[in-house]
Amino acid sequence: MTSPLLSGLATEIIIPICAVIGIVFSLLQWLLVSRVKVTPDPNGPPSNKNKNGYDDYLIEEEEGMNKHDVVVKCAEIQNAISEGATSFLFTEYQYVGVFMVVFAILIFLFLGSVEGFSTKSQRCTYDRARMCKPALATAGFSTIAFLLGAITSIVSGFLGMKIATYANARTTLEARKGVGKAFITAFRSGAVMGFLLAANGLLVLYIAINLFKIYYGDDWEGLFEAITGYGLGGSSMALFGRVGGGIYTKAADVGADLVGKVERNIPEDDPRNPAVIADNVGDNVGDIAGMGSDLFGSYAESSCAALVVASISSFGIDHDFTAMCYPLLVSSMGILVCLITTLFATDFFEIKAVHEIQTALKKQLIISTVLMTIGIAIVSWLGLPTSFTIFNFGSQKVVHNWQLFLCVCVGLWAGLIIGFVTEYYTSNAYSPVQDVADSCRTGAATNVIFGLALGYKSVIIPIFAIAISIYVSFRFAAMYGIAMAALGMLSTIATGLAIDAYGPISDNAGGIAEMAGMSHRIRERTDALDAAGNTTAAIGKGFAIGSAALVSLALFGAFVSRAGIQTVDVLTPKVFIGLVVGAMLPYWFSAMTMKSVGSAALKMVEEVRRQFNTIPGLMEGLAKPDYTTCVKISTDASIKEMIPPGALVMLTPLIVGILFGVETLSGILAGSLVSGVQVAISASNTGGAWDNAKKYIEAGASEHARTLGPKGSEPHKAAVIGDTIGDPLKDTSGPSLNILIKLMAVESLVFAPFFAAHGGLLFKI
Amino acid sequence: MTSPLLSGLATEIIIPICAVIGIVFSLLQWLLVSRVKVTPDPNGPPSNKNKNGYDDYLIEEEEGMNKHDVVVKCAEIQNAISEGATSFLFTEYQYVGVFMVVFAILIFLFLGSVEGFSTKSQRCTYDRARMCKPALATAGFSTIAFLLGAITSIVSGFLGMKIATYANARTTLEARKGVGKAFITAFRSGAVMGFLLAANGLLVLYIAINLFKIYYGDDWEGLFEAITGYGLGGSSMALFGRVGGGIYTKAADVGADLVGKVERNIPEDDPRNPAVIADNVGDNVGDIAGMGSDLFGSYAESSCAALVVASISSFGIDHDFTAMCYPLLVSSMGILVCLITTLFATDFFEIKAVHEIQTALKKQLIISTVLMTIGIAIVSWLGLPTSFTIFNFGSQKVVHNWQLFLCVCVGLWAGLIIGFVTEYYTSNAYSPVQDVADSCRTGAATNVIFGLALGYKSVIIPIFAIAISIYVSFRFAAMYGIAMAALGMLSTIATGLAIDAYGPISDNAGGIAEMAGMSHRIRERTDALDAAGNTTAAIGKGFAIGSAALVSLALFGAFVSRAGIQTVDVLTPKVFIGLVVGAMLPYWFSAMTMKSVGSAALKMVEEVRRQFNTIPGLMEGLAKPDYTTCVKISTDASIKEMIPPGALVMLTPLIVGILFGVETLSGILAGSLVSGVQVAISASNTGGAWDNAKKYIEAGASEHARTLGPKGSEPHKAAVIGDTIGDPLKDTSGPSLNILIKLMAVESLVFAPFFAAHGGLLFKI
Repeated sequence: MTSPLLSGLATEIIIPICAVIGIVFSLLQWLLVSRVKVTPDPNGPPSNKNKNGYDDYLIEEEEGMNKHDVVVKCAEIQNAISEGATSFLFTEYQYVGVFMVVFAILIFLFLGSVEGFSTKSQRCTYDRARMCKPALATAGFSTIAFLLGAITSIVSGFLGMKIATYANARTTLEARKGVGKAFITAFRSGAVMGFLLAANGLLVLYIAINLFKIYYGDDWEGLFEAITGYGLGGSSMALFGRVGGGIYTKAADVGADLVGKVERNIPEDDPRNPAVIADNVGDNVGDIAGMGSDLFGSYAESSCAALVVASISSFGIDHDFTAMCYPLLVSSMGILVCLITTLFATDFFEIKAVHEIQTALKKQLIISTVLMTIGIAIVSWLGLPTSFTIFNFGSQKVVHNWQLFLCVCVGLWAGLIIGFVTEYYTSNAYSPVQDVADSCRTGAATNVIFGLALGYKSVIIPIFAIAISIYVSFRFAAMYGIAMAALGMLSTIATGLAIDAYGPISDNAGGIAEMAGMSHRIRERTDALDAAGNTTAAIGKGFAIGSAALVSLALFGAFVSRAGIQTVDVLTPKVFIGLVVGAMLPYWFSAMTMKSVGSAALKMVEEVRRQFNTIPGLMEGLAKPDYTTCVKISTDASIKEMIPPGALVMLTPLIVGILFGVETLSGILAGSLVSGVQVAISASNTGGAWDNAKKYIEAGASEHARTLGPKGSEPHKAAVIGDTIGDPLKDTSGPSLNILIKLMAVESLVFAPFFAAHGGLLFKI
Repeated sequence: MTSPLLSGLATEIIIPICAVIGIVFSLLQWLLVSRVKVTPDPNGPPSNKNKNGYDDYLIEEEEGMNKHDVVVKCAEIQNAISEGATSFLFTEYQYVGVFMVVFAILIFLFLGSVEGFSTKSQRCTYDRARMCKPALATAGFSTIAFLLGAITSIVSGFLGMKIATYANARTTLEARKGVGKAFITAFRSGAVMGFLLAANGLLVLYIAINLFKIYYGDDWEGLFEAITGYGLGGSSMALFGRVGGGIYTKAADVGADLVGKVERNIPEDDPRNPAVIADNVGDNVGDIAGMGSDLFGSYAESSCAALVVASISSFGIDHDFTAMCYPLLVSSMGILVCLITTLFATDFFEIKAVHEIQTALKKQLIISTVLMTIGIAIVSWLGLPTSFTIFNFGSQKVVHNWQLFLCVCVGLWAGLIIGFVTEYYTSNAYSPVQDVADSCRTGAATNVIFGLALGYKSVIIPIFAIAISIYVSFRFAAMYGIAMAALGMLSTIATGLAIDAYGPISDNAGGIAEMAGMSHRIRERTDALDAAGNTTAAIGKGFAIGSAALVSLALFGAFVSRAGIQTVDVLTPKVFIGLVVGAMLPYWFSAMTMKSVGSAALKMVEEVRRQFNTIPGLMEGLAKPDYTTCVKISTDASIKEMIPPGALVMLTPLIVGILFGVETLSGILAGSLVSGVQVAISASNTGGAWDNAKKYIEAGASEHARTLGPKGSEPHKAAVIGDTIGDPLKDTSGPSLNILIKLMAVESLVFAPFFAAHGGLLFKI
């Protein structure tokens, strides 16, 4: 067993440097976006010397550049959206803050009680010959790590929302100069979020490890057990972000569509619709802040899962810091790779036509994956000993560095495959969505039947991709391999988030164009950006689900190790009932979230109808609607409705662990994992397909599409119904299931010592 | 270890006697139904001496009794339905026959190859000290048992269809005399099917055991291994019955509704609709023949699972015939209990008003469950030794007779709970369906969102009921306990099937009333019968799914034992990938079946539209539509479309077993079980709820319902869309999943020795 080529000191320096590079790059992108001005020049009409921040606009084909009032209007709408989003997030954080404090206390008490709050050092769990820090210390540091993770998650989500609401109007204004400029603005803004999140996540984790090490010293087992709190903190915030944000966005969207598009026959994002601001706010709090928290959670959890397994493997036993930090080195390399990849979209090439958008985004995925494969090879060569041992449920397994390279790669490439399959099933360039659109001929019912069937079918290949990743990485390096495969899938997270955040920003940009009364041509450009964004959003969800599956399996493995279970035998009643009840939880959870969206949407519909009926001149565009009430309805509903599903996820592991013990809890985790992945993938893809089937009919870009259209035709109406049904599936219940899967696993991992010591009360009687 | 109180000889006599009693009772019911004449008296108008077979009709309030042409019309329609159903089933059986022969050869070759087609006796698998018959003999007898099971299943389904098409017009004619008479006719006909199926299934199994025993003698291990072929035969026929029948019925139903109700605004079952006969045929081939085969399959499989475990427990080792036949004794008792229960519906009480129907059917469930509890106690007391041992994955576990009594009871009562929960979520007498109906106010989209959420939610309690049954029975008597819990749930199968078959018969009766142009009052009576039937159909599906879950777990356990696996550890890559892929299979399967229904329905829509557009006078009722073409479209589509999902189910265990081996196959079985149950329950209940939400609006029986109606209102249109979407969910993909779960398990069990000997090729390389 040799040392890695990279020295410990080099590792200590390289990781923070990469993180800082990421942050600087992110700020640079922000600076570039901020050069687009949304305030008209106070010194005169905007056609004068200032030229709206650009020197070259006169040489491009432009439109409406000189309209002073359009810029003012855009700025106004942007402000309304930004204020709505900020106020919602602050309200959400108040509730979440209370939860955070309560849960932090719970963690401290539960973990502290494992050894009766003793302050004496104890024998280590895995190496009985050595002494480890007391459980009370682990309780304290776990609590701190939990709070750190929670705060980082909140900051990630909040910053993402801020940049998105900062960029939306700018994208609209740039669309006047052409689709290429608008694309770059939207994409750069997405990149700000992607890089900030990836770099921050890495930096905070790195600092936490180094600070904790001051206390823990050589007790790495205790150190990295405490660090798992970071994952729990990240994921529990993501729960509320995803669920609350998801309910918010879809209540507003469904409510706005049901009255606006279906009853009043006015276009999407029409400023006469009272729910239109709430709808646009929703994109930012749900798809941006929620998604950001979710992926940050996955990233934090897979790092923690890898670290906790590594700490009881030869890396940890031999105190090999570089090898121990291998997961962080992979993430550092990811930041550099994504940086280069981003330049391909913003600087090396330029988009000139609408059809190039989708290709440019797809290229981002391919380039980052190919470059990252080389990057992983370098990191594995420099950062790992040529062979080492990995803890594997009680025994140590010998692993070679090339095997670990394969583990990371299989995750990375599985992510790409999932991305492409998702694209195939949700983009209207391919036959599945076109078939769904075609089924609208016979009405909404066949549209729904075909859409559901599409979603079910779209599960097949991703599941095989996940299964193969699991088999390969499990075989080579047990649970450490799985955790590294998950990190491999997430290693290009900065690019993934950039193209993902690009979607809602474009969506908002289109909304602002419509509301500001900009011309049809500009709306067409933003629509093209948005259609590509729909598919990338589905791809992003595919990544999120795929990585969630791997992460939660890794966490599950770490939990089993920490709880001291040797086998999880399906053929024991305790495990089997866990398995079947666990497989039920995604359904229970989905029932709650979908019903929440439905009820909140009904309230929204009533309010929108009330305004149309009681405000004179609203339909004619003479009076302004009351946007604030609609924003308030969405806010109140989502805050109220996120509590029951949140409680289900947070309490299940605690109740099962305490009453039924670790075996049944293992069954619950395995069951909810294998069942939840299917529900999540099918829900996301069904929703994405319906959305794009509708867009396919609206765009009328082919002979076939034109036979189904135009807007307002019977097939189009059927497509709108499908789109509305898909909204809660793809943006609320589907993506929230990632969190259900991961969070229950990481919570079980954190509380494992407590359950092992005091759990299973019912069976003990 | 004592002997049971009942001697072996008494057991030998009691079982066939009970079976014969069931058959005689069934024929008696048929006789009573046949007294309703559908041919008008050739000697004169029907009001003369013959009095249409009844002597007392003059004292009842009657309507249209004297219309000669109505009776003729009913008879004509009945003939058309019966011919369509018979011709479809014969076509189906031709294809299924080919499959049967091919699969029989496969079974023989695969099982024969285990010991290289040697004709010498071999050491037994579980008791190495003793000699067992050669594998070749087991191969031969398994093949014979497979064919027996397949033929019994076909006969059960076919007879059910025959009696149903015999009874439908009779129910319509009886509806003229009042709702009570019609109810009794429909219920008696259901009972014919229920008792025939339960008694035949028992008798054939009993005879097979006794005949096989002549060859096997004391080698009960081999004997009961060979008998498992009976379950495989029953279930594989059920696959085609359920899938083929399900696609048939829903292609016709969806197609008829989309053009008839939505586009042309004509009522359901209107004779002008060209697809109306196909729709009515569908009820008989899907809901009757398919359901019959399905439940027969469950019954055969749980008996086989119990017997195969018993044969290697003390019952088998000590050659205690009575105790060995305990599963058959429970079923025998079930026939007697159901016989008494039936009399409560047909003879002891009489239905006088519409609202009593639902109560009468619910009472059937309660009475049969209560009586059966006593029955099981008697059988357990007489038929079991006070204590004995049960094989439990390698060891023998001591069990007392009262524990086994509890195992059977927990299954029985879990069935009742599942039934009641299903009723609560699908009957429009309760708030869940009323909420769904209410959501139609805001259109089809909210209706679908609420309906899906309802289906997901309805999974919770049944899963807990199943989990508790599993825990209790597993804890007390390992896999034997699970198999007996499944048999407990199925012990009242005759009553379950009677109330289940009652539904489609009433549905058909309503269709015939509409087509024969009978008065609104009669249609109201048949509608009331039908609404209750919708709920009982959902309850029947609940039973079918619940028992399928228990059965397949029992089969899974038997498979694991027979394949010589000691543990199925989730924490091994081989098992885990099986688990996650297995959990995906229900989605793949559902995607296929739903897409099939969708495509077939589209073809049907085109044909119906074509006829409305090209046949002059059709809409005015002056010309007759071409029913035959629609029947042919449904037939062709279902035959063609049932092959891919059938292949998925039949080939998966073979491919996985041969290539990946028994561990991965175990994972597949566990995964598909825990995931499939959820999909099946939620699909059935969502569909049932939508159907009854629509009926709730149509009936307008409450103040709330009237605000949503009447027929043709916007909320009603939204409800019709939901109903149409629910059709394939509740009648095709949902119920077919039972078969997926069970069939893969029983197939694995039958082929276990082959997989254990030659499987896992991929991992061997």
